[in-house]
Amino acid sequence: MDPKTVSGEPRGRVIVDPWQRRIREVFADDDLARLHAVARVTWGRDEPMPLEDVSTALRDATAIVTAGWRYGPLPTRTDRLRAIIDVGGGFPPQLDYGECFRRGIRVLTAAPAFGPQVAEMALGLALAAAREIVRGDRAMRTGEERWQHEGNSTSFLLSEKPVGLVGFGSIARSLVPLLAPFRCPISAFDPWLSPGFLRSQGVVASTLEDVLATSRVVFVLAAPSSENRALLSRAMLELLQPDAVLVLVSRAHVIDFDAMTELVLAGRFRVAVDVFPVEPLPIDHPIRRADGAILSAHRAGSVAEGLWQLGQMVVDDLEAIVATLPPQRLQVATPELIARLSGDSTNGSSRPIDDTAAGPKDG
Amino acid sequence: MDPKTVSGEPRGRVIVDPWQRRIREVFADDDLARLHAVARVTWGRDEPMPLEDVSTALRDATAIVTAGWRYGPLPTRTDRLRAIIDVGGGFPPQLDYGECFRRGIRVLTAAPAFGPQVAEMALGLALAAAREIVRGDRAMRTGEERWQHEGNSTSFLLSEKPVGLVGFGSIARSLVPLLAPFRCPISAFDPWLSPGFLRSQGVVASTLEDVLATSRVVFVLAAPSSENRALLSRAMLELLQPDAVLVLVSRAHVIDFDAMTELVLAGRFRVAVDVFPVEPLPIDHPIRRADGAILSAHRAGSVAEGLWQLGQMVVDDLEAIVATLPPQRLQVATPELIARLSGDSTNGSSRPIDDTAAGPKDG
Amino acid sequence: MDPKTVSGEPRGRVIVDPWQRRIREVFADDDLARLHAVARVTWGRDEPMPLEDVSTALRDATAIVTAGWRYGPLPTRTDRLRAIIDVGGGFPPQLDYGECFRRGIRVLTAAPAFGPQVAEMALGLALAAAREIVRGDRAMRTGEERWQHEGNSTSFLLSEKPVGLVGFGSIARSLVPLLAPFRCPISAFDPWLSPGFLRSQGVVASTLEDVLATSRVVFVLAAPSSENRALLSRAMLELLQPDAVLVLVSRAHVIDFDAMTELVLAGRFRVAVDVFPVEPLPIDHPIRRADGAILSAHRAGSVAEGLWQLGQMVVDDLEAIVATLPPQRLQVATPELIARLSGDSTNGSSRPIDDTAAGPKDG
Amino acid sequence: MDPKTVSGEPRGRVIVDPWQRRIREVFADDDLARLHAVARVTWGRDEPMPLEDVSTALRDATAIVTAGWRYGPLPTRTDRLRAIIDVGGGFPPQLDYGECFRRGIRVLTAAPAFGPQVAEMALGLALAAAREIVRGDRAMRTGEERWQHEGNSTSFLLSEKPVGLVGFGSIARSLVPLLAPFRCPISAFDPWLSPGFLRSQGVVASTLEDVLATSRVVFVLAAPSSENRALLSRAMLELLQPDAVLVLVSRAHVIDFDAMTELVLAGRFRVAVDVFPVEPLPIDHPIRRADGAILSAHRAGSVAEGLWQLGQMVVDDLEAIVATLPPQRLQVATPELIARLSGDSTNGSSRPIDDTAAGPKDG
Repeated sequence: MDPKTVSGEPRGRVIVDPWQRRIREVFADDDLARLHAVARVTWGRDEPMPLEDVSTALRDATAIVTAGWRYGPLPTRTDRLRAIIDVGGGFPPQLDYGECFRRGIRVLTAAPAFGPQVAEMALGLALAAAREIVRGDRAMRTGEERWQHEGNSTSFLLSEKPVGLVGFGSIARSLVPLLAPFRCPISAFDPWLSPGFLRSQGVVASTLEDVLATSRVVFVLAAPSSENRALLSRAMLELLQPDAVLVLVSRAHVIDFDAMTELVLAGRFRVAVDVFPVEPLPIDHPIRRADGAILSAHRAGSVAEGLWQLGQMVVDDLEAIVATLPPQRLQVATPELIARLSGDSTNGSSRPIDDTAAGPKDG
Repeated sequence: MDPKTVSGEPRGRVIVDPWQRRIREVFADDDLARLHAVARVTWGRDEPMPLEDVSTALRDATAIVTAGWRYGPLPTRTDRLRAIIDVGGGFPPQLDYGECFRRGIRVLTAAPAFGPQVAEMALGLALAAAREIVRGDRAMRTGEERWQHEGNSTSFLLSEKPVGLVGFGSIARSLVPLLAPFRCPISAFDPWLSPGFLRSQGVVASTLEDVLATSRVVFVLAAPSSENRALLSRAMLELLQPDAVLVLVSRAHVIDFDAMTELVLAGRFRVAVDVFPVEPLPIDHPIRRADGAILSAHRAGSVAEGLWQLGQMVVDDLEAIVATLPPQRLQVATPELIARLSGDSTNGSSRPIDDTAAGPKDG
Repeated sequence: MDPKTVSGEPRGRVIVDPWQRRIREVFADDDLARLHAVARVTWGRDEPMPLEDVSTALRDATAIVTAGWRYGPLPTRTDRLRAIIDVGGGFPPQLDYGECFRRGIRVLTAAPAFGPQVAEMALGLALAAAREIVRGDRAMRTGEERWQHEGNSTSFLLSEKPVGLVGFGSIARSLVPLLAPFRCPISAFDPWLSPGFLRSQGVVASTLEDVLATSRVVFVLAAPSSENRALLSRAMLELLQPDAVLVLVSRAHVIDFDAMTELVLAGRFRVAVDVFPVEPLPIDHPIRRADGAILSAHRAGSVAEGLWQLGQMVVDDLEAIVATLPPQRLQVATPELIARLSGDSTNGSSRPIDDTAAGPKDG
Repeated sequence: MDPKTVSGEPRGRVIVDPWQRRIREVFADDDLARLHAVARVTWGRDEPMPLEDVSTALRDATAIVTAGWRYGPLPTRTDRLRAIIDVGGGFPPQLDYGECFRRGIRVLTAAPAFGPQVAEMALGLALAAAREIVRGDRAMRTGEERWQHEGNSTSFLLSEKPVGLVGFGSIARSLVPLLAPFRCPISAFDPWLSPGFLRSQGVVASTLEDVLATSRVVFVLAAPSSENRALLSRAMLELLQPDAVLVLVSRAHVIDFDAMTELVLAGRFRVAVDVFPVEPLPIDHPIRRADGAILSAHRAGSVAEGLWQLGQMVVDDLEAIVATLPPQRLQVATPELIARLSGDSTNGSSRPIDDTAAGPKDG
């Protein structure tokens, strides 16, 4: 696997033009060294690479690492191009996937790299909500706290509680191991995955209604698609148990945010929310005053050290690609997934698929 | 093991007088049923049992379940008494342990029952501090939040970070499995346990100085003893890394709380605190205004459903005791531990040993 | 995901013609019921489907389940065909993969279904060799046994010993969790996978030489390819430690079997062997008399209940395919893998890829 | 915990006289070094220490490490003696336990040190029996083997099969983690433990009848006691399923060995046996010819490197004892256990309690 075994120099040529991200944001020191060992790097700067230079370089490149596709149609000749790798967080909507499939160019996203850090935050939010850590701290600051068991009248333990997952992509796959020592039975709704696959992952495939009605903690992890706008409608949200906690960390696209806000303000259930319909959230949005809410400014997936997972996965798979092996760590675009993804672009130029996949329940 | 196999009725007689706790607080329905199946229950009410009745009943009883010892010296004859079981949270200081050891009466505490719920809270506090969940929510409420990576400049991932434990008792033993999927290397300081035992538990025995100086997250889990007052002195606290998080969930007895408060207010490190030198904490205590602190009103160990673990462990071991078998789940008083425990009684009539054991480092 | 939600009947049409395997061998009762719920089944019998009928049926079919490809070139029109699924144990060499890739037809193998049962056998063989269970039993039958520690002079514990894997495919991925409680450090040689991917799986990427020279137990799990004939040459085998155990469960193709036999007969190391260069093995083959060998007649992957994993995986992914979703459980043919696979066909009409992938070390 | 912190020299004095075992058999190099660092060692040789010298030394010693008690009554004065530690494999029957309890001298056995190596062998035997590794090898040597699925007609997978444990002591506690990745539901019969304790260990408490009747693999792990001679009677053994496997690794004391032999010869079930009523087993014992048996000459607990666990545990707890702390790793004699242990001494001078505890089911 050592790419330098034969010739003493890297065998591949890779364009590195993350433009929306900085090089050092994506690659930790050692991964950057590995990148240069595995391939001759073209560009590799923080500023956007001039378009004409990209066009030229694509004729010789084995792969391109970018964040969204701003290069227009593929050049006529891309004889050596085997991979387009996005580090922006999803599959770029501007790309002509049909043409990529025809030419045998894989389109890959490093979105699964967000799984570990978002999953860690999701667990933290769930514990904070279940054990009322945020509300308890707030009371301590105003002197309104209640001590010991009197302060726990609405707290509950996460351990052994039924947990539901809406969407079973990379966040869910990172979250399931974190939940394992809590021994929670887990049900999952994901219409883009077969019940058999979900069973093989240790979770029970379920309808959205059942997930909502039977879980004490519901994690909303589904990426936006053309099929799942406001999937968690008011009627769905009303299925939640009175003492449930809803943790929303993928996109506000998938929920009726107004309905959720009203229900939380009415004390119907508790929420922990990292994503909002408009960001920054208007200063007068009523959710900002909800006692039953934990609010986070879209911070679950953007801890600096966590972003280096992007670069690590990219280099791991570049090692494979320059050795004419199939990649193993990044997510590969398939015709089926591309067809289902939405045109939602409120969060940048890439279609956010950092987590999966909940469409309407008839999938 | 079915205590009714032979005679069709329970074989033991057990006094149940928790007085400081209510029966239903200690025993869930099914454990209460099991209790009555395993033994004839004397008293079994919420009100304190009259002292003279206790004295009489002790002559015939196999065991007594209580919360602190308010009965004075043991009666002259306790021929059948095999166990004194405390559900208050520690070993009652008023008891004559020497006499118990001589008579072969085990003194047992259900304190390990607090381990799971305190450990869950400790992890929640650690994640809330590392990912700045509480501070982030506070900012959202004042409109001062910063979004995405700008709001994460001082956040860090728990995953793979060095973790230190001060005290390795029942909380630590419940916490270690919760930390396992985060793959953190764990060091522990506990002068009441041998390095070899700690190694057998998957942690590295360490000095207190090393635990403080090398860990990103330090969990303070040591129960108070005569040896560990203000063990975490100002000098010790100054060993902490600038970006460390200290989670304090056992007792304020073990820390120089004033020094801690000053250091946190100075931005030296972050803390999450569930226990205080005086409870309720004075309204003007400066820690209440510390931005780098998460504050909780002694709520880690008093979630109602978690308290039922007390009753479950008690009945599990009563099953053994009435069958003339050694108990397996409750913590047994040993001469060594009793000799080391402190007279600290700020938290009730029982010596809190819900977690172990950190004395001075030459322990 | 319920394929009958909309119309009340299965949406896909699937040809089921396993011919080399029987229907009931592949599908357990409940999976057969699921198969019929998810798709209208064409053929579905043990006898080979007439070729002309296959040709006709392929025009309308969504998928075909077969065991090797005996149907010649694909028909001109296969408009709905999305998957060719092999349950024979590998990728059929007779198939025109280029044409499949062009038409967007996925070729899938159920070979990973063999992983769990082969891994279980591999662990059993390793323990039997390390603890000398077979040799010990043989001695008991001739009365030559030695008791207690005298009988253990060449036995060793598997726990915490360095383990090496040659090939990291589906067997290895099933074996790693079984080894986890033994806390063995694991190195792996697989030139078809990047070092980064191997690290993400909890094993250390290594050269073949290092795997052989440093491991106490070496598991040979690599499927045959054009690149790995006699990969474990005499020179390589001589790198093994004197007290090492070699467990061979993939194919004899990858080892110099004569050299191995000589070295075992010379007492150089111990082996456990499930696969042979010729099967049935000639009655006078010297390995049959080797005291340091455990011999098994190619039985690791053919326990009946284990074969039902084939059917379970197939139906799990057919659920996805008929719902226009990408499959998740079966192994997908990629151009890179197909190019590297060997023409070895001693074990049937399918290229055995039930496990991965060890080519020459400059892979 | 460093015993030399204060004075620069070891604080305890420990007699080390294993006589039935050699020093180097018990202690690995590093543990021997630790032993000498933690205490001044008296004797410490392979030959038995002269009795009069022991008597004298006991007056000053903190602890004695021995293998069986050959020293008669305790000397009148043992003011500093805190522990009698047996490395022979059980609790010495010659010792006056009542006197030890009165004087506050703990009697400890290192028997749990056998758990890991016996558990590993037990799993190896179970896999060898389930997958017919021994029988399969035997057939290969006579040329009577059957290939692939034809050779597996009576083989089964261990994965997910119901497993039963007779006795839940240290072997069982080491075995349960090894079984975890096989996802077997586990029931256990141990009349010396409460159902609640067993539940807390992740197994279901069960009657002996149910364990035998419902398990595919039964592990017999109970140490002999006065209560469990031939506990597995003919009637009990006849409850086993026709295709069950019985793994016997504790003592033949607990089974009707003749009945077992007849039933195995009749093909009623399969066994793997490491312990026998008489050792060495008579050359003409019929079990030696049973095709359905795997036979091992009492080798499960006597691998040299495994015995070093004895010394490691001993030193770990001596570290505690010389620091006036309670031991944590060795098993402590309790009045209840001592009262129940048998006088069985076929295996040496120590009562073998290396595993627990199955008495008659009315326990």
